[in-house]
Amino acid sequence: MTTKIKAFGNKAAEADLVPLQIERRVAGPKDVNIEILYCGVCHSDIHTARNDWKNSVYPVVPGHEIIGRVVAVGSEAKNYKIGDLVGVGCLVDSCRTCPSCNDGLEQYCENGWIGTYNSPDKHLDGTTYGGYSTSIVVDESFVLRIPENIDLKGTAPLLCAGITTWSPLKHWNVKKGDKVGIVGLGGLGHMGVKFANALGAHVVMITTSPSKAEDAKSLGAHEVLISTNEGEVQKHLNSFDFILNTVPVANEMDPYISMLKRDATMVMVGAVEPLKPFHGGGIILGRKRIAGSLIGGIKETQEMLDFCGEHNITSDIEMINMQDINQAYERVIKADVKYRFVIDMESLKN
Amino acid sequence: MTTKIKAFGNKAAEADLVPLQIERRVAGPKDVNIEILYCGVCHSDIHTARNDWKNSVYPVVPGHEIIGRVVAVGSEAKNYKIGDLVGVGCLVDSCRTCPSCNDGLEQYCENGWIGTYNSPDKHLDGTTYGGYSTSIVVDESFVLRIPENIDLKGTAPLLCAGITTWSPLKHWNVKKGDKVGIVGLGGLGHMGVKFANALGAHVVMITTSPSKAEDAKSLGAHEVLISTNEGEVQKHLNSFDFILNTVPVANEMDPYISMLKRDATMVMVGAVEPLKPFHGGGIILGRKRIAGSLIGGIKETQEMLDFCGEHNITSDIEMINMQDINQAYERVIKADVKYRFVIDMESLKN
Repeated sequence: MTTKIKAFGNKAAEADLVPLQIERRVAGPKDVNIEILYCGVCHSDIHTARNDWKNSVYPVVPGHEIIGRVVAVGSEAKNYKIGDLVGVGCLVDSCRTCPSCNDGLEQYCENGWIGTYNSPDKHLDGTTYGGYSTSIVVDESFVLRIPENIDLKGTAPLLCAGITTWSPLKHWNVKKGDKVGIVGLGGLGHMGVKFANALGAHVVMITTSPSKAEDAKSLGAHEVLISTNEGEVQKHLNSFDFILNTVPVANEMDPYISMLKRDATMVMVGAVEPLKPFHGGGIILGRKRIAGSLIGGIKETQEMLDFCGEHNITSDIEMINMQDINQAYERVIKADVKYRFVIDMESLKN
Repeated sequence: MTTKIKAFGNKAAEADLVPLQIERRVAGPKDVNIEILYCGVCHSDIHTARNDWKNSVYPVVPGHEIIGRVVAVGSEAKNYKIGDLVGVGCLVDSCRTCPSCNDGLEQYCENGWIGTYNSPDKHLDGTTYGGYSTSIVVDESFVLRIPENIDLKGTAPLLCAGITTWSPLKHWNVKKGDKVGIVGLGGLGHMGVKFANALGAHVVMITTSPSKAEDAKSLGAHEVLISTNEGEVQKHLNSFDFILNTVPVANEMDPYISMLKRDATMVMVGAVEPLKPFHGGGIILGRKRIAGSLIGGIKETQEMLDFCGEHNITSDIEMINMQDINQAYERVIKADVKYRFVIDMESLKN
């Protein structure tokens, strides 16, 4: 059984997003039905809406940084009740049986996880639709609890930009006193700075844009390093315990690698394209490491949200109405947002 | 005080190696004076002799896979006595005070380790000379004990080719039952196959040359995978616990990365040049890792030699006389050797 709801999406690449009607399943026994309050705008939304990755199934309804309130729960759903504040991130299902799922790392599900949008939908035999919508129905195992004390609007981007930076910082055990570099100051990078600071690290913003220095410091960076300045790189050689590279396109790796300590790691979370070549000697001398990391699992996403509640951490955002989405996309592409757009879903309900 | 000894080396790039006389220090209180019996031929010898790395100081006397017998010991040297079988690898000194030296990882000495050849020599205020020579004087802290039971000629390459592959296999904890890929079957790769097999791993030789399959199996590979065959790569997707990439030049990384399990690592030990670009998505999906590794420290080199004594492991070699070195270099460059040349130093003494 389904119900028709309002959404915003597009029916083909190159077209602007427009109002749509979509079908949602009626909540099954383990489902939670969520009225969406806010939804963040991720660069992946744009890639999918425009079929940049050549895997879009139209109509596309983007949005995987979802904050809402529970309006109905299935008979067997135990974790949530009507009125609870909840979130939905990039995943709405996975196989739940493979080693990665068993390790709480559904984002590496070996049988393929189900994305919040543009994934096969086993319930309706169609494609999943995301959060640019008035409501969503999700299995409670993939629903997150949102702390009541933090700003809800700024919480939306935690579900993707937040967990994408939190997961590697925790997995590589960033701790008090570590010297941590965050490369790139955008939606991901600004969360990386906030988290690394809150974890007690000495945070160095690494950027090619001197104009970003002041903002980086106000977000929690203790130092700013201009990576195109050879002299500054030389001063930091072999000194970083960890570098998180959030730049969404291929970028020069050698200067960053040269600044890692022996056995230290630079983790790439942004550039889903061929990386720039780096020198083999750069990793051989010092046994250095380059790794990747993808969003995060449900368990660690909940841990991040709880941490954000305790430390009052949210994203810096700019609110928009649903009808402004196409202009917002253009500004995201120009990196003209500090640091994430969030859609007020009330604008879609009217 | 110095003594003049016979050596083979060259006085300029482009010139063939020829007989030279060089000065060695007379053994100081902590030194061991070693009569050299055998010396392996490493590709680095050629790079240095020919100034490929633009850091050669002539005359160059190459050689850092040295096997010999102790002929004199200093008054304070406690670990060796006259007649002991010993080895000298790539390092003859380091700062001994930095964190890496304190961790027994002199090869990552943060103040710069002293190479067996072509490094500044604090004793003679000149440049260190390597093992293409009748004898060498080395501080006992950088001398290795050679098991008496194994073939001495085949032991020489363990001091560089051996430890370069042993160190990453041990550091990344390769163990019984792991599926381990060894990329490239040369001086390094053939040792990687032997060690991974002896550690109990399921060893897959990964090569672009089908002609190497039989040799790889006789060395200990359980399977051979032709990496240019897309179908074979597909069969091994996400299945390797560890891959050791020994190819000495930049090589296609994406197929290897695609075969790593989640959280697994490919370690590069051969290519000291800009690596080929690989796809960011390849490491992000599966939290995979690329790392480098450089030879090994003194402690782990001794552990490797002891392991080789217990398991009767040596390199497969081809013996040459010192006078054949220039032809041998040409064959190394063409990868026309199974799998390492070793110089019988008796030929230099005559």
